[in-house]
Amino acid sequence: MATIKDIANRLGISVSTVSKGLNGANDISEELRQMVLDTAVEMGYTTKRMKKEEHKKLCIFVENMDYEKPNQFGYDIILGFKQAAYRDNWDVAVIPVNPTFQMMERYDTYMLKNGFSGAFFVGFALHDEWMTQLPTTTIPTALFDNFIKKNPNVGYVGTDNFEGIDSAVDHVVSLGHKRIAFLNGSLNSMVTEQRNQAFLDSMESHELTVDEDLMANGFYVSDSAKYHVPNFLSAGATAIICANDLLAYGTIEECRSRGFRVPEDISVVGFDDLPTASHFSPPLTTVRQDRIELGKSGYYTLNSLIHHVSISKTLLRPQFIERESTSPLINKKKKIK
Amino acid sequence: MATIKDIANRLGISVSTVSKGLNGANDISEELRQMVLDTAVEMGYTTKRMKKEEHKKLCIFVENMDYEKPNQFGYDIILGFKQAAYRDNWDVAVIPVNPTFQMMERYDTYMLKNGFSGAFFVGFALHDEWMTQLPTTTIPTALFDNFIKKNPNVGYVGTDNFEGIDSAVDHVVSLGHKRIAFLNGSLNSMVTEQRNQAFLDSMESHELTVDEDLMANGFYVSDSAKYHVPNFLSAGATAIICANDLLAYGTIEECRSRGFRVPEDISVVGFDDLPTASHFSPPLTTVRQDRIELGKSGYYTLNSLIHHVSISKTLLRPQFIERESTSPLINKKKKIK
Repeated sequence: MATIKDIANRLGISVSTVSKGLNGANDISEELRQMVLDTAVEMGYTTKRMKKEEHKKLCIFVENMDYEKPNQFGYDIILGFKQAAYRDNWDVAVIPVNPTFQMMERYDTYMLKNGFSGAFFVGFALHDEWMTQLPTTTIPTALFDNFIKKNPNVGYVGTDNFEGIDSAVDHVVSLGHKRIAFLNGSLNSMVTEQRNQAFLDSMESHELTVDEDLMANGFYVSDSAKYHVPNFLSAGATAIICANDLLAYGTIEECRSRGFRVPEDISVVGFDDLPTASHFSPPLTTVRQDRIELGKSGYYTLNSLIHHVSISKTLLRPQFIERESTSPLINKKKKIK
Repeated sequence: MATIKDIANRLGISVSTVSKGLNGANDISEELRQMVLDTAVEMGYTTKRMKKEEHKKLCIFVENMDYEKPNQFGYDIILGFKQAAYRDNWDVAVIPVNPTFQMMERYDTYMLKNGFSGAFFVGFALHDEWMTQLPTTTIPTALFDNFIKKNPNVGYVGTDNFEGIDSAVDHVVSLGHKRIAFLNGSLNSMVTEQRNQAFLDSMESHELTVDEDLMANGFYVSDSAKYHVPNFLSAGATAIICANDLLAYGTIEECRSRGFRVPEDISVVGFDDLPTASHFSPPLTTVRQDRIELGKSGYYTLNSLIHHVSISKTLLRPQFIERESTSPLINKKKKIK
């Protein structure tokens, strides 16, 4: 476990300042105190005060999502949730689950037996056993990227996928592209469905024809790209929008291995803006999801549900980030000649 | 202006306890302190502490909406916003606006000149001049029941109208009704458009035919009902869903004046659950919007925008409230024979 000294070193401040921050002393600024607390949570430091209220426990269930390293998609979501929950003196357990785990016990039973006041679901698919139990759960439950109709105990937190995909289409259209492919993620996911519809809507609003050969579903991992990108290239795609950054990395590699340059021949857009996206070669044009704030919103939504305020949906705006994996179509045409 | 004594009388506690609550003393509970503060805000009491930070100012612009009396729709929305904002030491001005006011000065200019850090818009129509300026505003702005695409400075707060209308349709269908009319509110309103689409979707999902003679747009006032209800009755409606409680009150009166009993002959459903709805004769079956929490959510959204967290949308769940203005179709059929 991290020590006070580790926190002091990371922040470049004195041990006594860290100690003041952790103990709520009045002679440091609120901003500094918050930074100390946030860093303590991030580094896994726990004070007695943080441990004292044993009965105030929340949990985050994670499925199908990497979250243990800062570069991974789920890391900041879980960190943001914990940072916000800690301010209200909640203890937070992170529990990886799989289909077998969900079959062992009903969701509500598991929560009551383990004394959790509420949960945040991250990375669940539509057909997951516990998801099918949520329409009638009485446990306050916030869902990242999933929605349950009409149950006042369940809320949805996510990014506005329609605006996200629309901003990507908008961008490549403004660069002159018309043969636009969409490499989507896993089926059985609400987000995949939303992004699919968003792509269709956006192409229609730009008066562009959607070609079935230019749409495919992979999984949200880079390896998936190699099964679909060759077809896109044969079908004449000049721009490929991917449903996450990992798919975009795979797409760029696959294009290159087949002699296409990115962005000169093919423009590629990602989704998420992982910490690696700006260091990729070329730096990735992508749609940013603010994962720290998504995690915090997950906590705020859950805390509202616990207090009987029935938040149905909290959506954050995506932010379009233009880097160097996209370029005007004109360059490409010259190249082909 | 209310005095400390007025607050003490209202709450049935001593003047010294009120004083402790207002001054943040430690020897009263947090719940009691919050109740004192909330009541002080509601009664218009202002302490020096509440006034001191002159630069921290927000405003609520109100158009087309009654809000001055507790029975009126806007009252709790504004109260909830103020209660939440006060906890963060904001001063809140409530400013009624009309089309002329909006033509006098650009929105951004008005805000900067008057030193407001952000605004909450309540009751605006889609074609309002200031609404048309919002796609490019740089001022943090939360909208009640309105949505602006792609501007990270603007957020939308409201009730899920789709679930609200669906729960009303669901209810009357479960009572055996098939000839279901929908009396909607004013055109040029996003909420009106959402409720219209929600009605069409819900009727389709219940495999019922939508008859154009059973749909109409009035205004959100009770008087409006008399222009449309006679047509609904001639067209054989047995249930009438109204887009707010005022329209439902007018609908019930109009039915009666034409010899139809409510609920025996015609079932009527409202929307909002105004404080008067449970005292109406018959007590109104309606869809509740939690207006205090909508106001608070308006503040939380605005506060997030001010801190550069781009919340796009916060939706609360509606709650279906079954009272006595609806009844099974079987009764009506007997009566007609």
